[in-house]
Amino acid sequence: MDNKPRTPVTVIGLGRMGQALADAFLKAGHPTTVWNRTTSKADLLVAEGARLAPTVSDALKAGSLAIICVTDYQAVHELFGASDVELDGTMLINLTSGSSAQAREAARWAEQRGAHYLDGAIMAIPPTIGTAEAVILHSGPQADFEAHKSTLDALGTLTYLGADHGLASLYDVAGLAMMWSVLNAWLQGTALLRTAGVDAATYAPFAQQIAAGVAEWLPGYAEQIDSGSFPAEVSALETDARAMAHLIEESEAVGVNAELPKLIKAMADRSIAAGHGGEQYPVLIDEFGKPRDD
Amino acid sequence: MDNKPRTPVTVIGLGRMGQALADAFLKAGHPTTVWNRTTSKADLLVAEGARLAPTVSDALKAGSLAIICVTDYQAVHELFGASDVELDGTMLINLTSGSSAQAREAARWAEQRGAHYLDGAIMAIPPTIGTAEAVILHSGPQADFEAHKSTLDALGTLTYLGADHGLASLYDVAGLAMMWSVLNAWLQGTALLRTAGVDAATYAPFAQQIAAGVAEWLPGYAEQIDSGSFPAEVSALETDARAMAHLIEESEAVGVNAELPKLIKAMADRSIAAGHGGEQYPVLIDEFGKPRDD
Repeated sequence: MDNKPRTPVTVIGLGRMGQALADAFLKAGHPTTVWNRTTSKADLLVAEGARLAPTVSDALKAGSLAIICVTDYQAVHELFGASDVELDGTMLINLTSGSSAQAREAARWAEQRGAHYLDGAIMAIPPTIGTAEAVILHSGPQADFEAHKSTLDALGTLTYLGADHGLASLYDVAGLAMMWSVLNAWLQGTALLRTAGVDAATYAPFAQQIAAGVAEWLPGYAEQIDSGSFPAEVSALETDARAMAHLIEESEAVGVNAELPKLIKAMADRSIAAGHGGEQYPVLIDEFGKPRDD
Repeated sequence: MDNKPRTPVTVIGLGRMGQALADAFLKAGHPTTVWNRTTSKADLLVAEGARLAPTVSDALKAGSLAIICVTDYQAVHELFGASDVELDGTMLINLTSGSSAQAREAARWAEQRGAHYLDGAIMAIPPTIGTAEAVILHSGPQADFEAHKSTLDALGTLTYLGADHGLASLYDVAGLAMMWSVLNAWLQGTALLRTAGVDAATYAPFAQQIAAGVAEWLPGYAEQIDSGSFPAEVSALETDARAMAHLIEESEAVGVNAELPKLIKAMADRSIAAGHGGEQYPVLIDEFGKPRDD
């Protein structure tokens, strides 16, 4: 670390993640003020040099930016809604988990009270905070992000998504959907292969290679979606659907769960029924893009 | 190409894939005999130098190995079941799509008639056959695979999976499940982001990075499955389930399809109900490994 004085920061909310955030700031040399409803959660941080503020208002005054990481947006509103909490001129960076609508509403409310507001989402677990492995998404006014980027760098790898405060939440859940889908497909394959005595470690590299390979198609497939044109350059959906039937039949024949295979085929079948059987897979965006009541 | 004489080969079945296989053999310099019920499908190949055999028996005699690529296993049995088709001493490599049970049964049946039999699955589209991009899976006796590998190399990148003839089909559908799952998760995310005006091309690199990143976890997670022990080193399933609820709520709030998010959470909820909430994601193998009637 160089000897340049570091920007003072505030962390509000000291759950496992809030503690990790404050700890990363301290390790990077930032004067760090913390606040938590249950003050004992600050003990370790205070021992490391953090200052425990007696009130939220006091905590906000201490830092040139305040990270908020509490249970949910209800807790955010309870903490900052009190009329004696002075928000005018503060820089709030809310990393609390919530929906895009909640993020947009909190932004409107904070900005009406004179605060600068960025919303964020942490795509990482607490032990990785402060390392490049911790990806932290931000959305809101770009000027605010740029002004505080060098301070936030202490927390992990920063990604700025755009001015719409809802983007961090949307990217976050979209990324989680990808994470669970890769894991579930791997579990489906592992379950299938185990019926033939193949262990999980033997199958995993194969699944890894497929997932990484298919991931590389996404930018090309995205062009089809953005152009709204889905020529079957690789394969037609009705051909895919026949292979999906094989996946269901195989799963049922060897006695493993067939719900994921059935959902895959149900989405394709609906698109085929809507007349898209001769088009390519990304045409399914129409099905994913609309709710289904059932 | 060097001037070494190439092994004569036979291709039975000249759909789009069979034609591509025969074409790849011809281009690699193999004397190639073909057979198809509708002989006109052989016209282009004959113009390139293939020999059209009048009968299946004649076709089998011409090659030191015979690739079979027909509609389904029913067609395989119809073609080779006739008592006048001499299989004794032939090397059959069946790349017809089917189930692991069908592959095992065809192997028994072919071996009883004196044939060598490998089952295979083509993880590629016809235009890529003959290039490294075409992955072709094989299962059956390893000696047979090794004996013919240098000939089969003309078709693409070969993978040998094991002696169990059912493995090629199982790996094939497992790989397809991964392919569709990555695509579906990407479509779910694309649909979510489009509600905020983010185009598919903007979102795709993010999805690509997540998919490739999660794929790298699989070998480590596989160790948990093989050891049957699922300590929550990264995250506990009950923590994941709360984030899954966010994914469902966000999908419903912005009006996109929530079926995939709901299936993700349903699998996790069942595992939590079975007492695994404090364990890590791969514990879900128990749910994927058993059928569910509903």
